[in-house]
Amino acid sequence: MGGDYAPEAVVLGTIEAAKSVSPSTVIVLYGDKEAVEKIFDANGGKPGCVEIVHTSEAIAMNEHPTQAFSQKSDSSITVGFKDLKKGAIDGFASAGSTGAMMVGCMLVSKTIPGVIRPSIGSGLMSVKGTKVMLLDVGLNVDCKPDVLYQYGIMGSIYAKVICGIDTPRVALLNIGEEPEKGNMTTRETHQLMAGSRDFNFVGNVESKHIFSGEIADVIVCDGFVGNALLKQAEGMYSLFADKLPGNDPVMCGLNYENEGGTPVLGINHCVVIGHGCSTPLAITNMILATEKNIALGLVSKFKEAFV
Amino acid sequence: MGGDYAPEAVVLGTIEAAKSVSPSTVIVLYGDKEAVEKIFDANGGKPGCVEIVHTSEAIAMNEHPTQAFSQKSDSSITVGFKDLKKGAIDGFASAGSTGAMMVGCMLVSKTIPGVIRPSIGSGLMSVKGTKVMLLDVGLNVDCKPDVLYQYGIMGSIYAKVICGIDTPRVALLNIGEEPEKGNMTTRETHQLMAGSRDFNFVGNVESKHIFSGEIADVIVCDGFVGNALLKQAEGMYSLFADKLPGNDPVMCGLNYENEGGTPVLGINHCVVIGHGCSTPLAITNMILATEKNIALGLVSKFKEAFV
Repeated sequence: MGGDYAPEAVVLGTIEAAKSVSPSTVIVLYGDKEAVEKIFDANGGKPGCVEIVHTSEAIAMNEHPTQAFSQKSDSSITVGFKDLKKGAIDGFASAGSTGAMMVGCMLVSKTIPGVIRPSIGSGLMSVKGTKVMLLDVGLNVDCKPDVLYQYGIMGSIYAKVICGIDTPRVALLNIGEEPEKGNMTTRETHQLMAGSRDFNFVGNVESKHIFSGEIADVIVCDGFVGNALLKQAEGMYSLFADKLPGNDPVMCGLNYENEGGTPVLGINHCVVIGHGCSTPLAITNMILATEKNIALGLVSKFKEAFV
Repeated sequence: MGGDYAPEAVVLGTIEAAKSVSPSTVIVLYGDKEAVEKIFDANGGKPGCVEIVHTSEAIAMNEHPTQAFSQKSDSSITVGFKDLKKGAIDGFASAGSTGAMMVGCMLVSKTIPGVIRPSIGSGLMSVKGTKVMLLDVGLNVDCKPDVLYQYGIMGSIYAKVICGIDTPRVALLNIGEEPEKGNMTTRETHQLMAGSRDFNFVGNVESKHIFSGEIADVIVCDGFVGNALLKQAEGMYSLFADKLPGNDPVMCGLNYENEGGTPVLGINHCVVIGHGCSTPLAITNMILATEKNIALGLVSKFKEAFV
C-alpha cells in the first residue's frame, strides 16, 4: 500500500520483478488482498512467486509516524516489520511513509550493537557507470564526527558487498580538498578518518565530483547536506528530463527510478525505503535491490564489522 | 592579475565591458602595466574609459592569504583595497585569490556595524528567467540562527535593490517544507524568521526548487551547505555542457560566466569576487555587475538597514 501510486504501481512493479528474481525468491506483498488481486487479474494474473498477506489498514503519508505505526497494528508497514522480526521474511521494502518505515527500523529491527546511529545512503550512478554511495542522505541531520566516521565504515562495507569493489575509496564531502577546509565537524572528521584502518580514506571530495565517479566510491556527509544535495540533483534532473533522451547515461544515473530505494544501514534487518512517488520501474528495482541485499548477506557483514 | 587566465582574460573581458558601461564609468585595472598594455595593443587598443594602475606584485592562488596580503604591499589586490578605502575607486572586483580578497574585505573594508557576519551570495538564474539569490555560499560555514536571520535581511535588500523585486520572497533552505523539519540550526532559524518584520519570509524551501524560481527569490542557508549546492550545480552543469546548446535557458542559468561574480554583502564597500577560472565573458559580467552594484547604491542600502 506504500507510495503515491499504490497499490497499482506496486503490483505492476512486482509483476516485472517476478520475471527477474531467483527461482527460490518469494515476493510477499502486504496490503488489501482484494484490491491487489484485482490489479493482478487485470494484468495477466499473479506470478507464482508472489504471495499476498492481507492487511486491513494503511499508514497515510501525512500521519504521525510513531502514533500511526503503533495504533494501526494491522497496517501493511506494521505487519511487515512484525514478519521481518520473527523471520517470516528476510527483507522488507516499501515506498510508503518514510517516517513509519523509520519507526519500524528503530523500534522493531533496532540498531546493531556498536553502531551509534543508523544511516540511509543513496547509490548514485556516476557518468563512468560506477555506483557512488552517498551517505547519510537524511536520517541523521546533526552528525558528530564519530558518527560520520562510522558512516565511512558502513559505506565501505556496502560498496564492497553490494557493488563488488575490493577496496572502496571513501571520501569526506567537503567544500575544499585540503584537510583544514570545511566547518568544525568536517575538519574534526577529517582528522579522525585520516588515521583510519577501517576503510580506505582518500581525503575530502567536493560536491562537483559526486557524479564523476573519479575520486570516490563512497562519499560521507551529514544527513542535512546529503539530503539537500540529493534533492538538488533530483530537481536538476527534472529540469533536463524533457531535454535529453532517457537513455542518456547521465540522465540514467540521475533517474532515481533506476535505483529504486535506499537501504537502511546499521539495523538488524534488511530494510529498503523507496521514493514516495515510486513508479512501477522504481518498485521493480526496489524489490531487486532488496533481494540482492539479502542474497549477499549485507546485514550480517555489518554485524561482523561492529562486533 | 586575478584568475587562472589573467591578465589576458581580464583585459579581453574589460574590452567587452568597456562597450557597455555608462559614459561616466571608468574601469581601473590594477596590474603589470606593460603586460596589460601589450594585450590591449594586440586587441585593438585600450578603450578611453580604461585606466591602468601599475602594481609590481601579484598574489598567487596557493599563497597564504593573510600573509601575502600584508607582505605583498604592491600586489594588485592590496593596492586595489587601499584605493577602495580612500575613495579613489567606488568598487573593486577580482577573480584572483578569494582568500586574499576576503582578507581585504575583513581587514580593510571591514564589517558594517550591526552586521554579525558578512556573506557571499550567488545570483542563480531560475528556469523562469528570474534571479534567485542563494546565500551564504561559502564565507561562513558554521552559521548560528541569528546570522542566518541577518542573511535573510541581506538577501532581501539585494533582491530589492539589484533585481528590482518589490517584496522579495525569502525562504530558508531546508530538507522539508514543514517548520519542524531540518537540523537544530534550521529549526531554530525558522522560528526566528517566522516572526520577521524585516523581510517577507515564505517558509522552508527544498533544494529541488532552487532553480525553479517558483517559491523564493532569496534562499538562505549555511555557507557549507550553500557552497556544496553551488559546486554540485557546477558539476552537473559540466556534465550537460556538451549535450545541450549553450543558449538553452537552463544551461544559461547554470553557467557561472553569465553571473561573473558574487558580491560580498555586509561590508563597508562594494566588492565582487569572481570565479578563479574566469573567462573573458565572466570578467565582462563581473565588471558590469560591480558597476550596477555601485550605481544602485547597494552598500548604502545595507548601511541604512543595519544602523
